[in-house]
Amino acid sequence: MSLREEAAELDALDPLRDKRAEFDLDPDVSYLDGNSLGAPPRGVAPRVAEVVGEQWAARLIRSWDEGWWDAPERIGDRVAPLAGAAPGQVVVGDSTTVNLFKAIVAAVRLNPGRPEILVDAATFPTDGYIADSAARLTGHEVRRVPVAGMADAAGERTAVALVNHVDYVTGTLHDLPAVTAALHGAGALAVWDLCHSIGAVPIHLDAAGVDFAVGCTYKFLNGGPGAPAFLYVARQWLDSFDQPLSGWTGHADPFGMRPGYAGAAGIGKARAGTPDILSMLALDAALDVWRDVTVAQVRAKGLALGDFFLRCLDELVPGARVVTPRDHRRGNQISVAWTDAKTAMATLAGRGVIGDFRPPEVLRFGLAGLYVRYADVLRAAAELRSLRPM
Amino acid sequence: MSLREEAAELDALDPLRDKRAEFDLDPDVSYLDGNSLGAPPRGVAPRVAEVVGEQWAARLIRSWDEGWWDAPERIGDRVAPLAGAAPGQVVVGDSTTVNLFKAIVAAVRLNPGRPEILVDAATFPTDGYIADSAARLTGHEVRRVPVAGMADAAGERTAVALVNHVDYVTGTLHDLPAVTAALHGAGALAVWDLCHSIGAVPIHLDAAGVDFAVGCTYKFLNGGPGAPAFLYVARQWLDSFDQPLSGWTGHADPFGMRPGYAGAAGIGKARAGTPDILSMLALDAALDVWRDVTVAQVRAKGLALGDFFLRCLDELVPGARVVTPRDHRRGNQISVAWTDAKTAMATLAGRGVIGDFRPPEVLRFGLAGLYVRYADVLRAAAELRSLRPM
Repeated sequence: MSLREEAAELDALDPLRDKRAEFDLDPDVSYLDGNSLGAPPRGVAPRVAEVVGEQWAARLIRSWDEGWWDAPERIGDRVAPLAGAAPGQVVVGDSTTVNLFKAIVAAVRLNPGRPEILVDAATFPTDGYIADSAARLTGHEVRRVPVAGMADAAGERTAVALVNHVDYVTGTLHDLPAVTAALHGAGALAVWDLCHSIGAVPIHLDAAGVDFAVGCTYKFLNGGPGAPAFLYVARQWLDSFDQPLSGWTGHADPFGMRPGYAGAAGIGKARAGTPDILSMLALDAALDVWRDVTVAQVRAKGLALGDFFLRCLDELVPGARVVTPRDHRRGNQISVAWTDAKTAMATLAGRGVIGDFRPPEVLRFGLAGLYVRYADVLRAAAELRSLRPM
Repeated sequence: MSLREEAAELDALDPLRDKRAEFDLDPDVSYLDGNSLGAPPRGVAPRVAEVVGEQWAARLIRSWDEGWWDAPERIGDRVAPLAGAAPGQVVVGDSTTVNLFKAIVAAVRLNPGRPEILVDAATFPTDGYIADSAARLTGHEVRRVPVAGMADAAGERTAVALVNHVDYVTGTLHDLPAVTAALHGAGALAVWDLCHSIGAVPIHLDAAGVDFAVGCTYKFLNGGPGAPAFLYVARQWLDSFDQPLSGWTGHADPFGMRPGYAGAAGIGKARAGTPDILSMLALDAALDVWRDVTVAQVRAKGLALGDFFLRCLDELVPGARVVTPRDHRRGNQISVAWTDAKTAMATLAGRGVIGDFRPPEVLRFGLAGLYVRYADVLRAAAELRSLRPM
């Protein structure tokens, strides 16, 4: 059986094959960049039209009491199961960057007397920038450590460690339960960045005892460009956590307009300013695609897509420098080191195969199981082959 | 001439009378809450549909290079003239709360050796909460001072003062140039909160030498519920300001993915995380209503609406306790102290006259000149009269 026949058979047998129809995607495009910007679920456009034309225009200010005000917690509770979190621990709003700041400052306050913040040495940059900024304000020092060395590095000086669940360049999946346990063993708290794993990989925050987690909703959750991020605060910290962006919507009595801050009970305290309703309700609509599918199913397909892509690469682009683990210690992406990756990806995109690239010269192919087809990854490999000098 | 006849004549002669048609507003509703949530310009719904259906769905990740990435600065430059700011000093994104945090921390860093932050004693609460949080992190102390006493209170210990341009309860307009000059005279920096003045009152940030300003875009700029806020950094501080939410999109080389932060040249350094594109481009569309109208025109109408409303109140609700200055030292709202304001406003809203209320027992009526009619304010006064015991 040829790769083409195999792809056709895999697509025909794919239990998620009907999900792609729920997305507004050109059938001729092979969209392999869902790890950067997810595709639009068809339910988003009508929902946004409803929010503008009915909720905002017709109900005006009254809509705040009719589903807007509590949207951050309500939609947080929709994200929670995708992260293995019981209700009441996730709030949606602000950017990942801003939520990282809340989490890191709150974490060091919960673990006083420890001067050090560990940061995943390969982290997506914003995490490191924010850790540096938080450390400067709180008088901590930041030490960058590879995730593989985090367990050994954590010690009695460590207040908190900030770790990426999936490495954004290589796609490596880190062992969240084991690293969390090692950090806890050293008396440190764990803040996980789930940007590249939420909606792609099963996550069990509660079971692993994670303290804080942040993540974005515009990659594998398809919330739209720059959609609001989320912040998870473990139940055990809900009473005591003390975050620095203490805005009015996180107040226990927000419309009491009191001069002094008193945080709301529960996860509401993690809110800062007025929530961005248009984007938030677009995300709400986007989450509807999960009503009949589990992360485990998406994960199984993502791994199968990756396995098939690796076979296609081996056959069509022998010697391609795959930087993603070939075993299943990876997220839902396959990355390939490639000379002049920027030009190569522009060529691929011009031919309808859309991924992206990251320094240093790495092509990234995201494998969003909800809409990527086996034929798409075969096509990507075939296009890569065509870029090679004959 | 009766008040009704007078209202009809004023509406007929109103040079902005045609602007209301640019908003999606029920003709039977008197919407007097534009100081809390502006009404939807008709251009927003089609723009949002285009962003979802064409930019996101059809162009996918490529849209980041086709108008998304630079939207915060581009739209900032559209807000700038409404604030009396030359281009390159305003960025749109995040919430007012988050931008206040950036501004206050940046301001105290620019003015070292001064241990005190002054805060408008009557401020909208979030400003005070964030000042307290910033002070805790930077080792400053916060002192709450009425704006009228700010000039006397500022001294050699004052690093920065945070002042509301228009008081959100009483509608009092503070003298931005005079207070700024007094603060500068004491060697302090000035951070202005323009939430209740932008789009309602002419503002001259550059001319007044203001250092930082923040404001929201969902009140008199009609950007939509929770639309992104803005941050102004005066040109003289663009090189040296050093804000704490140093996220990847404010980096000089954001896609270089470098481990250390180096802020972009110019106002881009004020960005934090990934911008919220859907809401930001809704705001972009909302700003189109300013293409053929000036803030001065809107201000003139807002004052005229207020003057007429005060006359209607005097005639129909004699003795009503107006807490807004009757002279023109006010923003675009009239506030009335009223027993059980919450119940009263619910009754008014049920009759199609929508304002809001704030503690302590104050009814607020916003006078957005772009869509409020003289007939609306007469109706509000008539409805208030009907609430009085006979």
